[in-house]
Amino acid sequence: MEDLKQLVEAVHRELGSKLEEGKVADYIPQLAKVPLKKFGIAVATVEGDLVTVGDAEEAFSIQSISKLFTLTMALGRWGERLWARVDREPSGSRFNSIVQLEHEHGKPRNPFINAGAIAVTDAVLSGSQPKEAIGSILRFMRFLAADDDITIDPRVARSEQATGHRNFALAHFMRSFDVIEHPPAEVLGVYFHQCAIAMSCAQLARSGLFLAAEGRNPLTGHRVVSAARARRLNSMMMMCGHYDGAGDFAFRVGLPGKSGVGGGILAIVPGKAAVAVWSPGLDANGNSHVGTAALELLARRAGWSVFG
Amino acid sequence: MEDLKQLVEAVHRELGSKLEEGKVADYIPQLAKVPLKKFGIAVATVEGDLVTVGDAEEAFSIQSISKLFTLTMALGRWGERLWARVDREPSGSRFNSIVQLEHEHGKPRNPFINAGAIAVTDAVLSGSQPKEAIGSILRFMRFLAADDDITIDPRVARSEQATGHRNFALAHFMRSFDVIEHPPAEVLGVYFHQCAIAMSCAQLARSGLFLAAEGRNPLTGHRVVSAARARRLNSMMMMCGHYDGAGDFAFRVGLPGKSGVGGGILAIVPGKAAVAVWSPGLDANGNSHVGTAALELLARRAGWSVFG
Amino acid sequence: MEDLKQLVEAVHRELGSKLEEGKVADYIPQLAKVPLKKFGIAVATVEGDLVTVGDAEEAFSIQSISKLFTLTMALGRWGERLWARVDREPSGSRFNSIVQLEHEHGKPRNPFINAGAIAVTDAVLSGSQPKEAIGSILRFMRFLAADDDITIDPRVARSEQATGHRNFALAHFMRSFDVIEHPPAEVLGVYFHQCAIAMSCAQLARSGLFLAAEGRNPLTGHRVVSAARARRLNSMMMMCGHYDGAGDFAFRVGLPGKSGVGGGILAIVPGKAAVAVWSPGLDANGNSHVGTAALELLARRAGWSVFG
Amino acid sequence: MEDLKQLVEAVHRELGSKLEEGKVADYIPQLAKVPLKKFGIAVATVEGDLVTVGDAEEAFSIQSISKLFTLTMALGRWGERLWARVDREPSGSRFNSIVQLEHEHGKPRNPFINAGAIAVTDAVLSGSQPKEAIGSILRFMRFLAADDDITIDPRVARSEQATGHRNFALAHFMRSFDVIEHPPAEVLGVYFHQCAIAMSCAQLARSGLFLAAEGRNPLTGHRVVSAARARRLNSMMMMCGHYDGAGDFAFRVGLPGKSGVGGGILAIVPGKAAVAVWSPGLDANGNSHVGTAALELLARRAGWSVFG
Repeated sequence: MEDLKQLVEAVHRELGSKLEEGKVADYIPQLAKVPLKKFGIAVATVEGDLVTVGDAEEAFSIQSISKLFTLTMALGRWGERLWARVDREPSGSRFNSIVQLEHEHGKPRNPFINAGAIAVTDAVLSGSQPKEAIGSILRFMRFLAADDDITIDPRVARSEQATGHRNFALAHFMRSFDVIEHPPAEVLGVYFHQCAIAMSCAQLARSGLFLAAEGRNPLTGHRVVSAARARRLNSMMMMCGHYDGAGDFAFRVGLPGKSGVGGGILAIVPGKAAVAVWSPGLDANGNSHVGTAALELLARRAGWSVFG
Repeated sequence: MEDLKQLVEAVHRELGSKLEEGKVADYIPQLAKVPLKKFGIAVATVEGDLVTVGDAEEAFSIQSISKLFTLTMALGRWGERLWARVDREPSGSRFNSIVQLEHEHGKPRNPFINAGAIAVTDAVLSGSQPKEAIGSILRFMRFLAADDDITIDPRVARSEQATGHRNFALAHFMRSFDVIEHPPAEVLGVYFHQCAIAMSCAQLARSGLFLAAEGRNPLTGHRVVSAARARRLNSMMMMCGHYDGAGDFAFRVGLPGKSGVGGGILAIVPGKAAVAVWSPGLDANGNSHVGTAALELLARRAGWSVFG
Repeated sequence: MEDLKQLVEAVHRELGSKLEEGKVADYIPQLAKVPLKKFGIAVATVEGDLVTVGDAEEAFSIQSISKLFTLTMALGRWGERLWARVDREPSGSRFNSIVQLEHEHGKPRNPFINAGAIAVTDAVLSGSQPKEAIGSILRFMRFLAADDDITIDPRVARSEQATGHRNFALAHFMRSFDVIEHPPAEVLGVYFHQCAIAMSCAQLARSGLFLAAEGRNPLTGHRVVSAARARRLNSMMMMCGHYDGAGDFAFRVGLPGKSGVGGGILAIVPGKAAVAVWSPGLDANGNSHVGTAALELLARRAGWSVFG
Repeated sequence: MEDLKQLVEAVHRELGSKLEEGKVADYIPQLAKVPLKKFGIAVATVEGDLVTVGDAEEAFSIQSISKLFTLTMALGRWGERLWARVDREPSGSRFNSIVQLEHEHGKPRNPFINAGAIAVTDAVLSGSQPKEAIGSILRFMRFLAADDDITIDPRVARSEQATGHRNFALAHFMRSFDVIEHPPAEVLGVYFHQCAIAMSCAQLARSGLFLAAEGRNPLTGHRVVSAARARRLNSMMMMCGHYDGAGDFAFRVGLPGKSGVGGGILAIVPGKAAVAVWSPGLDANGNSHVGTAALELLARRAGWSVFG
């Protein structure tokens, strides 16, 4: 624990000088306002320890990291039938590409590109009103993090709604193939709210801990998913969690992870820990530049790579 | 060891009834002649044990599994500069697709699709004659397996040469972008021979063991690559080792692996073992149908998944 | 005139037996109800004659033929600046493809595929309310046909609105690239109404006559466009008027033409006549099966091909 | 005749100042040596007149214009069965794209993109040796131009052979789908020689005259093709004769035409004349920059557009 703390602090210190190298997401106006110099790291271990450094207690927009949690919810509800709606192969395309959808009859390649995440949200929405679905997702996040202070930032949700034409295009396209069931405006209403959930690194690390611990949250003792499903969720994060930079993340970091354009990344060290980093500057693939570097350094020094 | 033997035998027995479900590769005439009922499994452990069952001592055409070994050779020679020639992202396309090449100026997506493997072979060939390069590759395989009986099947090499128009198209296409340096006929002469290497499951498992043991072959004590490179090779196998079925393999098996259309798969259990399976019947993505199922069962029962 | 009448009647008679071969458009429920046996031909000559046969006086949904007229309006308003919004090359894709848009930054290939026509409608809408724009388009059609009885079928417009997810996808996609200026729902509100204009072959032939007569309507004496623009509109129809069947139409008929999924086709014989045919059964490319055959026969017997 | 001469001379004079604006094809070394200032125009009329101006008597490499003549030969031999090997739709892609081939099972979109022309040459080659086929093509050109001095430039043929990797890729790709029958090296041996035919504007205009005269060469009285086939060849030139600039050529010039990267364009005025221009500077689509402008001006002033 003391060693881990020193390790995390060293990584935070060494990478602090690189915070200006990335570029804040500018296509969502609310996100463009976040200062480049924010940088936090939190590590939650399966033994119940939590190490935080820098801005690890400050909430930021989790954006696409939410896709991991709605996928968990949708699998809980639909089980393996969910895979009839969305495939689970890496896409080889940008996060918002529509080309693949046309070539494959509207079925998204995986649940972590935008199209696939929208299809998953459609599955979560099934049978309820948008407001209820948003409530369920928020409650699930509070349950996972064991923290009732988690909220949704309504300005971010509105900002995405106003500028989300590409996502509307994806949703209408899938609707035309009956891949999603609900009106695009309803599905996206939920989707934009899930992306606007604000959480800190500490909250995120705790929320992801069940994936490092065979499906059970060691902090609360609650079983979230079966051990087999936890493994599979980890495999999905490894293969598809970083859009068209998934190969690079696996090569450099060697851990399952899911990134968001808010600059957050949640990575899982199976059997050991969940790690959340936040640094808003992004690389060309839309993943946190310093966040990735921090995970790379941390994984190397701690010997965490799943690849040996 | 005894437990492992029983486990492997049980898996072999249980899956024996499914051997007729796959389809032997028919686009290479020599491979089409291999009987569907062949089925072998070999596990080499980092402690030095070797467990074999079924047809694990019979040589078969390793085909694309060779791409892993030429990549290892090319990295040894060119180091990280190799990545200027070939990317390392999953492709989201079939193994022989040319579409991605046109969209990305002739640079292949990763070293395990055909285009990328041809570019890697071009790097291996650099500075030598085709015959010498073929000799080097064969010697490297003998060194890894610690077995001088490994040979190349000249009928398979000729069969691929005669029917390999798609590969000629890929090579000429890359040559037009100066991604490969040598005349396509020379590069492919080497490539078809590396694919025609014949090895048994036992030989393959031994050859891959360095990847499970931080880059050092525990049987011979030879260091093959650094620990960091072994991790990275494993990450490449995880992300790109099964073409457009990589996501499915990660989801079901949870191990880095590389398949070949001869029906072989080499999988790595980091820190523990290398596993080779052989069953010639293929699924729609060109990966061994029963071989994948055997690895899935084995990984589940042995708790080998890298994902927890 | 008497000869022309006999020629048209002969063609109508000979092709009447093939009306069951096509397939009525079924993706717009209102269109699916139109009987397959409807078949009309109208020829308006630059001398002022009008020959009609069969169901040539019955109104049908002109659908994509409207794209020709909104293009004429948009060019009248924006001049050659319009080409900054939409290109003028054949697309080599289906009428509703979105792939090309992604590859070319949201700029549609030509004004006759759906994406391009939506961009043209956006240009027509500029500066007015949707209702006013719909009124302007309807008035323009009445002016061209010199017939105040032309109306819009509100059931067809509603039917398209309810099922037009693919068009919503195209519009949102272009909006995300700022290729269109107005909210997609507004642009498509106008677009679905222009497609729902109901006209007879006789009305259509008269409306297109200015394109055969150097831009001036010989029936009314009104100049609609300059002679140069009439030539260019004809060239656009030739190159792009039949989606992915443009080459086939040019090969078989040899005239500029624009088809609609309602089963209508308007073809221009430069210097001589405008011809409208209607038969609701469509071929695989979405063009009227018997309508195309009728134009082919007519053009051959009358020696109308522009190609000699 | 005197008027036509003055018209052609005026166009030649007016555009002479723009010769530096284009860019000589540089991917075939032999072509890169041709001076930018070359500029010739020849008009052959169906009445038997020939008007020439500038460098209209100097031979240049006809390159892709040869595709029109091999298509004529292949149709003569295979008739409409030829369309089983090659489609006749505009491609919406660059002349050497391979993407469309993969999406459409190796069948080229039209006979004027490189892939389609190679498939046509394969059809011409059928049943003979490459040398014989080259001889037949050369004899056909001499017959059409009524001029035995036409030759093939062997340096250009060798230059294309040495740098033609993209064409080898296309040929092998089609061979893998059995779209072409002969070994790629044989087909391309013929193809590179047909592209290396050297002709002057005067010779080209005479050779194309049959297409303006219902299939009969008015100079020699020989029937080359039926009137229907002449029309169809003209339609193919209109739709596909300028690669991804076909729409622009139709819009600006309004005539069927076929261009080559040597800077030549052959255009047909049905019923009236064949026009050949030569100016080696190319635009972004690979078509002669000044050549296109000259045809645009000529067609406008002479009222030659087929579109009215």
